[in-house]
Amino acid sequence: MEKVKIVLINGSPRRYGWVSKLLVAVEKGVVDAGGEPELIHLYDYNIKPCIGCVSDDIKACRFPCIIDDDDFNMIGEKILETQGLVIGTPIYWYTVSGLLKNFIDRLTSMENMIYHVGKSLLDGKVAGFIAVGNDTGAITTIAYMMAVLNSMGVHIPPWALAYHHSTEDISSNKNAFYDAYNVGYNIVLAAKHLAKIDKWYKVDIDIDSIIKEAEERSSVEKLRQWSLRKNIVYKSSK
Amino acid sequence: MEKVKIVLINGSPRRYGWVSKLLVAVEKGVVDAGGEPELIHLYDYNIKPCIGCVSDDIKACRFPCIIDDDDFNMIGEKILETQGLVIGTPIYWYTVSGLLKNFIDRLTSMENMIYHVGKSLLDGKVAGFIAVGNDTGAITTIAYMMAVLNSMGVHIPPWALAYHHSTEDISSNKNAFYDAYNVGYNIVLAAKHLAKIDKWYKVDIDIDSIIKEAEERSSVEKLRQWSLRKNIVYKSSK
Amino acid sequence: MEKVKIVLINGSPRRYGWVSKLLVAVEKGVVDAGGEPELIHLYDYNIKPCIGCVSDDIKACRFPCIIDDDDFNMIGEKILETQGLVIGTPIYWYTVSGLLKNFIDRLTSMENMIYHVGKSLLDGKVAGFIAVGNDTGAITTIAYMMAVLNSMGVHIPPWALAYHHSTEDISSNKNAFYDAYNVGYNIVLAAKHLAKIDKWYKVDIDIDSIIKEAEERSSVEKLRQWSLRKNIVYKSSK
Amino acid sequence: MEKVKIVLINGSPRRYGWVSKLLVAVEKGVVDAGGEPELIHLYDYNIKPCIGCVSDDIKACRFPCIIDDDDFNMIGEKILETQGLVIGTPIYWYTVSGLLKNFIDRLTSMENMIYHVGKSLLDGKVAGFIAVGNDTGAITTIAYMMAVLNSMGVHIPPWALAYHHSTEDISSNKNAFYDAYNVGYNIVLAAKHLAKIDKWYKVDIDIDSIIKEAEERSSVEKLRQWSLRKNIVYKSSK
Repeated sequence: MEKVKIVLINGSPRRYGWVSKLLVAVEKGVVDAGGEPELIHLYDYNIKPCIGCVSDDIKACRFPCIIDDDDFNMIGEKILETQGLVIGTPIYWYTVSGLLKNFIDRLTSMENMIYHVGKSLLDGKVAGFIAVGNDTGAITTIAYMMAVLNSMGVHIPPWALAYHHSTEDISSNKNAFYDAYNVGYNIVLAAKHLAKIDKWYKVDIDIDSIIKEAEERSSVEKLRQWSLRKNIVYKSSK
Repeated sequence: MEKVKIVLINGSPRRYGWVSKLLVAVEKGVVDAGGEPELIHLYDYNIKPCIGCVSDDIKACRFPCIIDDDDFNMIGEKILETQGLVIGTPIYWYTVSGLLKNFIDRLTSMENMIYHVGKSLLDGKVAGFIAVGNDTGAITTIAYMMAVLNSMGVHIPPWALAYHHSTEDISSNKNAFYDAYNVGYNIVLAAKHLAKIDKWYKVDIDIDSIIKEAEERSSVEKLRQWSLRKNIVYKSSK
Repeated sequence: MEKVKIVLINGSPRRYGWVSKLLVAVEKGVVDAGGEPELIHLYDYNIKPCIGCVSDDIKACRFPCIIDDDDFNMIGEKILETQGLVIGTPIYWYTVSGLLKNFIDRLTSMENMIYHVGKSLLDGKVAGFIAVGNDTGAITTIAYMMAVLNSMGVHIPPWALAYHHSTEDISSNKNAFYDAYNVGYNIVLAAKHLAKIDKWYKVDIDIDSIIKEAEERSSVEKLRQWSLRKNIVYKSSK
Repeated sequence: MEKVKIVLINGSPRRYGWVSKLLVAVEKGVVDAGGEPELIHLYDYNIKPCIGCVSDDIKACRFPCIIDDDDFNMIGEKILETQGLVIGTPIYWYTVSGLLKNFIDRLTSMENMIYHVGKSLLDGKVAGFIAVGNDTGAITTIAYMMAVLNSMGVHIPPWALAYHHSTEDISSNKNAFYDAYNVGYNIVLAAKHLAKIDKWYKVDIDIDSIIKEAEERSSVEKLRQWSLRKNIVYKSSK
């Protein structure tokens, strides 16, 4: 069986900072679970801002991105070859760094392939998240990345988050390293078990009959509940 | 093989509202994927506010919750017997309803079993999320629930979210029904493939050697990058 | 000149916890700025969940709330007599406590008076925010409360936030106490300077001519920018 | 009296898009309230990513930013001369555009002047927020900007937000234009009334005596509440 490839993205300008340190633990977890990690320092590359073609024409946006004089498409190709990714970011004003935000915006080109090939190019991949700062914002950052990646079709395994949010040195925060290791380990574990599933979003559904049933069941419930509820809702307040 | 049991939680006071309608589609998805759904209207039950024992003593909080004169523990037991849950909520001031928030707070008793049996009682379960309102807040609500549940050890499969955020009637929003169906379908699909994994969070790790390596690799990077970077950071601005 | 009255709401079940401690500093700030603080421990009261009348009929929701067998309306009356409020909450799963969420949901009855008297009953009041926990979530909690209160017509003066998010004892976090003091001080300061303004949301506007101008200016810009932009958007990617 | 200057920042690549349209209404509101608006299309400028000097040395970060081969410092200077700003953004993956995020990250140089001149350069300015997209994310985006700007010392007046989050044409959403007008109007109104306040964050406080009192009052409350509460917290659950 081929190794599970995982891309680790460092969204910090500092290669020696706390994000990098937790990514070492992620790497260990990936390797121990039988995966093959590849680390990308995003700041080594030129990632231009998204220009929002999708707002002009939903079909104009596709992968490779039409912005082709920077490094996004190369990294996108790399992600295509993997089963998952871990995004590590410093907490800049309570969320991902601006460069990483540019990168996330550009991922639209991969997600938007729904309109070209019927499938997000990230569908079924597995992701984990690292956020590091010396002040608040860790869970704002992580919840944000979870919602975005899941909306692109990405699987989020249990305990897919690790963070540090204190001025204290990160090396004294063993929990953060345990968590980061598990992010790496769990991603590979989930990727292995989910590998057989080819496509997640199902469209061959008789949606009209489902909507019809939803309406019917709602009508029945309304008859039942409303007869009492209307007396409460329309009660005149004292 | 036994059927995959999924609890559907309706956090809306209205049994005939839009949340209920999308939960019909979720139910169909669960059934089509071979699962067995059970719908709980949370407003039918008494869920008292959490009193925060954990802040007095981390070990005081355990399942069943010490608040035993309401319905939380009964619903908690039900969740224990399932492989996953779908939480549906109306969007009340951009996030989950207050009653649902009480329920989430009380789930601490299940997560906190880490300190009693070495494992969150939700570890490895699979979850999906529905949010419905006529104004903004859908993704705030969903990102919030994702971060919370994942922090309790729960899987979030691809496309685990569905929402409606408009004054237009939900029955005209076919996408929301497609999405809701897929929430149900994907949860069962993921639960089946991940069933063999017994426990997700790994603690038998030599964390000290990992921290040591993180420090060493960081030092090497610092030597390399800092020699250049210091000239930028300490450049006097014009 | 009458004193500026400020209600301090403690959303924690623990009267001796860290939220209470920061509220002492808020109180000092309020007094030093010439205000009159009143502390309410929300857990001393019964606050039932909102039942969402507004989803059945936008006009059904009004103050006093039709749920009149609990303590919400009494606290609502109290807020009406003040110029501002400070909401303090423990961080329960990255946001406000469930009881406080019930309280926020019920504030809808005051905001929704827009549809009855043309004005939110909170319009022009001033608010500040305290969040305390031993883990992440402080800014998620505070950003949440800011967005909600501002959407009800409330001012948020500079530096209107204070938090503690660590297992370390709060008394060693002087910054949090400085911040909390300033929350109290700034609320009163802002309330004083803004007291003369009677109503904030203006509706006597010729909105149609504004929309017309927006359309016209957009057309001009489109002509200018699109002639170039279309070549980029429709460029075939390599 | 001099006119209140307000900078309007358009964070969208499209000068003819929906953000621009709402900014027309903001502009009207600013003018009607006696202010002087200036519109900046951020995409016309080069805004490089923040390189996080502050993580190396808290004092290294100052305004003007040491990155001086792009346009940030020029726009920063412009903001210094104004009493307020309105930030308009397209909703890109549920939050601000990447270019705007770069801009926000770079504002650190103005806020961090606390460590150089004892005051954030944005202290006391007034801000409002516009977010536009055809899907969810409006309040995530706006709550985010509120928390960030308030943490830099900025005042947020009542109803400081306007948004559109639908595929329907924005010109049919009159509410959004009303809201946008009021964002502009309220910012100027608040700026006028708050103009006399020179600095908001107070530091000449006897913080130690406040912490002492907080501890003492907490002890008293603990004695009172804990005698009962301990029986609940340590109750053995059934």
